[in-house]
Order: sequence, then structure tokens, then C-alpha cells
Amino acid sequence: MMETCRKLKVDLRCHTKTHKTLEAADILTGGTRRKIACSTIPECRLYADNDYEDILLAFPISADKIPRCAELANRLDEFHVMLSGLEGFPCLKDGASDLNAGKVWSVFVEIDCGYGRTGIAWDSDDTLEAGTLLKENPNTKLQGLYTHCGQSYDHMTPKQRKDHQKKIVSRLEGVAKKLRALGIEVPVVGTGSTPTCNMAEPVLSSFDEFHPGNYVFNDVEQLYLGSCKLEDIACCVATRVVCQRRDLNMLVVDCGFMGMSHDGMRQRPDDFCVIKDHPHLMYYDNSQELGKVKAKEGEKLDFERYPVGTILFIYPFHSCATAALYQEYLVHSGEKITATWKPVKGW
Amino acid sequence: MMETCRKLKVDLRCHTKTHKTLEAADILTGGTRRKIACSTIPECRLYADNDYEDILLAFPISADKIPRCAELANRLDEFHVMLSGLEGFPCLKDGASDLNAGKVWSVFVEIDCGYGRTGIAWDSDDTLEAGTLLKENPNTKLQGLYTHCGQSYDHMTPKQRKDHQKKIVSRLEGVAKKLRALGIEVPVVGTGSTPTCNMAEPVLSSFDEFHPGNYVFNDVEQLYLGSCKLEDIACCVATRVVCQRRDLNMLVVDCGFMGMSHDGMRQRPDDFCVIKDHPHLMYYDNSQELGKVKAKEGEKLDFERYPVGTILFIYPFHSCATAALYQEYLVHSGEKITATWKPVKGW
Repeated sequence: MMETCRKLKVDLRCHTKTHKTLEAADILTGGTRRKIACSTIPECRLYADNDYEDILLAFPISADKIPRCAELANRLDEFHVMLSGLEGFPCLKDGASDLNAGKVWSVFVEIDCGYGRTGIAWDSDDTLEAGTLLKENPNTKLQGLYTHCGQSYDHMTPKQRKDHQKKIVSRLEGVAKKLRALGIEVPVVGTGSTPTCNMAEPVLSSFDEFHPGNYVFNDVEQLYLGSCKLEDIACCVATRVVCQRRDLNMLVVDCGFMGMSHDGMRQRPDDFCVIKDHPHLMYYDNSQELGKVKAKEGEKLDFERYPVGTILFIYPFHSCATAALYQEYLVHSGEKITATWKPVKGW
Repeated sequence: MMETCRKLKVDLRCHTKTHKTLEAADILTGGTRRKIACSTIPECRLYADNDYEDILLAFPISADKIPRCAELANRLDEFHVMLSGLEGFPCLKDGASDLNAGKVWSVFVEIDCGYGRTGIAWDSDDTLEAGTLLKENPNTKLQGLYTHCGQSYDHMTPKQRKDHQKKIVSRLEGVAKKLRALGIEVPVVGTGSTPTCNMAEPVLSSFDEFHPGNYVFNDVEQLYLGSCKLEDIACCVATRVVCQRRDLNMLVVDCGFMGMSHDGMRQRPDDFCVIKDHPHLMYYDNSQELGKVKAKEGEKLDFERYPVGTILFIYPFHSCATAALYQEYLVHSGEKITATWKPVKGW
């Protein structure tokens, strides 16, 4: 991702939501400990406590977060919040009293370029109203525009992807242009999502920064989208055969939804995970602590090959959802565990 | 559930997998601290450390668990393991050397009465083979038969439910009868699953014990099955409106799959949760930290009523999956928080 950003001359503001660890962020920032996006305040605090700078809380600001965000803004040189609608502005205005002298709220305005979740719609005049409010208030400044191009998770042909990226650029640049025409500075225009950034077209070089997150691990969803190769998936769940059901042509493993999550299961009813080195097997269903594995396409399972105790490694459909279930990650090199990383939890 | 068990003259061995706390288990055992089923070894240890007795690790035994199970068997008067197939027997035989003098493995044999997950099929001769192996080995004893009647999660009419329960009884009693005919003692025959036990028919009085778990909280899935009423749901997620999308007739709340899980979402594409006191609203989709709420059946949302900051309480589809996402539970009486409970994590 660093290489992609270097080529496109775009800054990388890696998102920490998928891994939530100091160790992975150190790798993703190349050791600079600068320029990250976080999904929760505990993430922001973990990094702030470890000398990170230029941290964006990439989540809609609301009044309940003001005291904790002010504390972060006061102790960091660069801490940014996100305004995802005009209704979020009053808490910034009122919350300025929590800021130290000389501090102002540095704000990214979230623009919805068609994904349909949070943000101000790219074609709404509210974008200009937000920029004007931030400019006119002495305690706020517009740091940039932020969009999550989640549409990139729709399956796209290369042509559709190119068109999609062109559209995102044109919509976001259109908002920036209109703001600049009003005399409002827009230092940074950025976009994210791993499929977009893993498969970045040259047109994206017009952005100032990327903020993908999932690429730290990638997963089977990225694989299916063509956004990564199998060997790019850096997270898997180790599980064990605990029961053989010869009568049902099925193995049961000790990884249920507590170890895998449900994500992908009902989106791809056949196979939503990949079992490493066993392409003829599929993990197709789970309950709390148990998962069901069968042979693909009606093949007969070779029960001699998979006795109780056999360890299988499963690449998850959605690594963000799976990683969130663990209190720690085992980092390995081949068969050797080299470190244990503990993700930060909570909100 | 205690009342149901008293009426049916069945013992209650409550399953701790849903809550995993000392406090809830104390309530569910009526303070006796006896007779529970657990899904993980950390659960067993939490309760053993707090003077619980008669603990069943209701999970297929395998060799990796033998040292930890032996430690539990050695320090408790009654600790039981579960044999879910003949392949599990050798580790009990070999692992007997970890037991103190005078100790034997107390074993529940898991019978699959048609659910199709773990266990020995009720109509297989392996049930007799398992009983014989346990009887003939000096270090093992058969404590009972265990079945999880997960089929009860299929929607059933009262008539179908009655037939289902009759069938479970007949299948499990059939296995017990055949074992007893071989001179093998079967002290306990038990079944579980919350829908079965919440809607127990008199026929179930022939069982010795019930081991439901979900009923500690219940959830929207139980509600849809007719297994509980709305006021019986004892767990909900507090969430906050963080963005109003008037252009999309949608509210965005700060509860995504990290706070709700995906369970139910793609099973019931319309509404899978219930928003307390707001029956016209529905939580219908989520991403990592955000959930989407809209008005039911194309109604227009009253945005004046739901400003940013509004707190909503959501009853989850599957409380086991949702509770597992939290490091602690806030226990409340009305609007007052009266305690904080910390569930035990891991495997």
C-alpha cells in the first residue's frame, strides 16, 4: 500500500480499525507513527499514548465524545474529528470551551459520494454550509474532505471499477472546487476502502490521501473481489477437528461464530471461507463453538486424512469481524510463534 | 426455568455459554452453585474457582483438553466431560494417567437425535459401543446421555413442537434402554435448547435434566419462535443516533456489527432486531461501527423526534452472539446502573 501511494503521490493514512494494535500500526506507518485514522476513542488513545501524531477519529462527532476528543486535541499537535452532517456542528461550537488556548477543532467533513451511509451527500448544498460554518467559527477549521467509497465492495468488472473511481474523484473534487470557490481552504481530499486502494486506478492520484484499513490482513472477501491474492491474506483462525460424522459425510471443528463471526455465511451459502492447503474442503455453517466442514461438490470426505485433533487453518471472509472476536493475535513465522499482539477493545 | 423444572420434576443444569459470568450463574442456580454446563474451559475454571460443583464441559473431548480437564476433575467432586464420538475415547483412556488416585473420567455421551451436528446418531450401534467402552475401562464411567435438540430452532406449530419433543424423548430413552439392557448404568438422561425448555411439553418429564442456556437473556429469535415474550428479553444494546440522513429517510446509529454481530441480519432481511419503545423503527443493516435505522413499511421518519444524540435500546436477534462482543455488561434497574458484570473470555 505504501508503494501504491508512492506511485500515485498520495499520502497514506492507514485505518487502524481492523487490527487495533500498536505493532501493526508501526508496520503500516513505516515506523513514522504519523497519520492514521481510527474508528474508536480507545484506538486514538492507544496511539496517542505511544507518541503517534496526526490522528483522525474517523467517526461522526457527537456531543458525548467532545470531552474525550478535547483531551486528545489538547495533547496532540494534530488530532482531527469528523463532521458527518450539519447536526454535528453545534457540539463542536459548544465544545470549544474544552479546548486549550490556541487550539481549534481540526475537522474533516465526511462526504457521501453515493455509498449511502454517513456523511453529507456530495450533491447537497449542505457541503457548502458545513464549510462556511467551519470557516466562520473561530474555534473550527476545515482540514479536509473524507469519503468512504464502500461501493467498491460491489463486484465490479475492471471497466466498472475504473468508472467508479473516476466518479468518486469527480464528485469529491467537485465539492472541493465549490468550497474553494467560496474562499474556503481545503487542505486534504481523501478516500479509502481497501478494494479501491488495492486496485487503484491512476485517476486516484488526484487525491491527497488514502485511508484503507482492511488491507493489513486482507481476507476472503477481498480475494473474491480480486482485491488481493490468497498469499496476501495475513490472518487465519487455527481450528481443530473435534468430531467425525461419517454418517453425515461431515467434520465438526472447534471454531464456531465465537471464533469466525457470521459475516459472509449467509451471503455466500456455499463457501465463504478458505481452508488453507485443503481446497476440496469447505467450512459452510457454524453455531456458537462449532463449525461444520464438508467436501466440496458432493465429494466424499477422506476421514482417514482428518482424524480428531487435525489442525486446519481458515482464512476468514471478513477479517475485521473475525479479528474483533479475539483478545490477542499470535504472530508467527512459519510454525514458530514470534509475538503476541493485544488489540484494544471497546468504544 | 426453575419453576418449569420443578413442575416437570427435572433437574436444571443451566448452560453458562450465553452470559459467562459468576453473577448470572449464581441467579440461575438459585445460589446453590451446583449443576452447570459450560462451553469452554475458562468458564469451567471461573466456576470451579468460585466453589461451583457438578460442572459439565459440554463440548466434544479431544486430546488437547485432557491436561486441563484432568486438573478440573482432580479438584472437583463432580466434573464431567462429553464424548461425542468413538474417536474421542482413546484420549480418555490415555489421559487417565493425569487423574489422581481414585478418580475416573465421568462422561456424558452426546447423542445426536436428528439435529445433525456433534454426537453419535441415536440410531447407530456406536451408542452401545461407547457405553461398553466406558463400562469396561476402569478409568471411565458413563454419567449420562446428553442431546442438544437444536431442531427446536426451526419454526414449529404447537402440534409440530409436541411431536418433536415426543420424538426426542423416544429416541434418547431408546438409547438409554438399550444400554441398560446391556447392564450399563445410565444415571442421567438430559436435553437442552431454550425453545424446547421454554415451551416444554409434559412428555419431557421423562428426562432427568435440562440444560438450556440462552434463556438467561432470551432474544428476538426466541420472541419470533414464540419461546418468550418481549418483556422476557433481558439484554439490550444501548446505541445513539450519530447521523441523520433526511435525503435517504434513514438514521445512522453507533452500533455496527462490533456491537450487535451479524446474526439474524441475512436470515430476516427486513427486521431482525427490536428497538425498544419504537416499534415503527427498524435496525436493518450494519457495517463495523455503524447501523442503519429506517421507518417500517416505507413510513417517513420523524427526524425532529430523533436528533443526533438520541439513545435507542436494541434487543438483539441472538443474545449469545451479541453478548460475546462485550468486555462487560451493565446491569440496571430502571435507569440506574446497579452493577457491572465481566464475562470470561477465550477457550
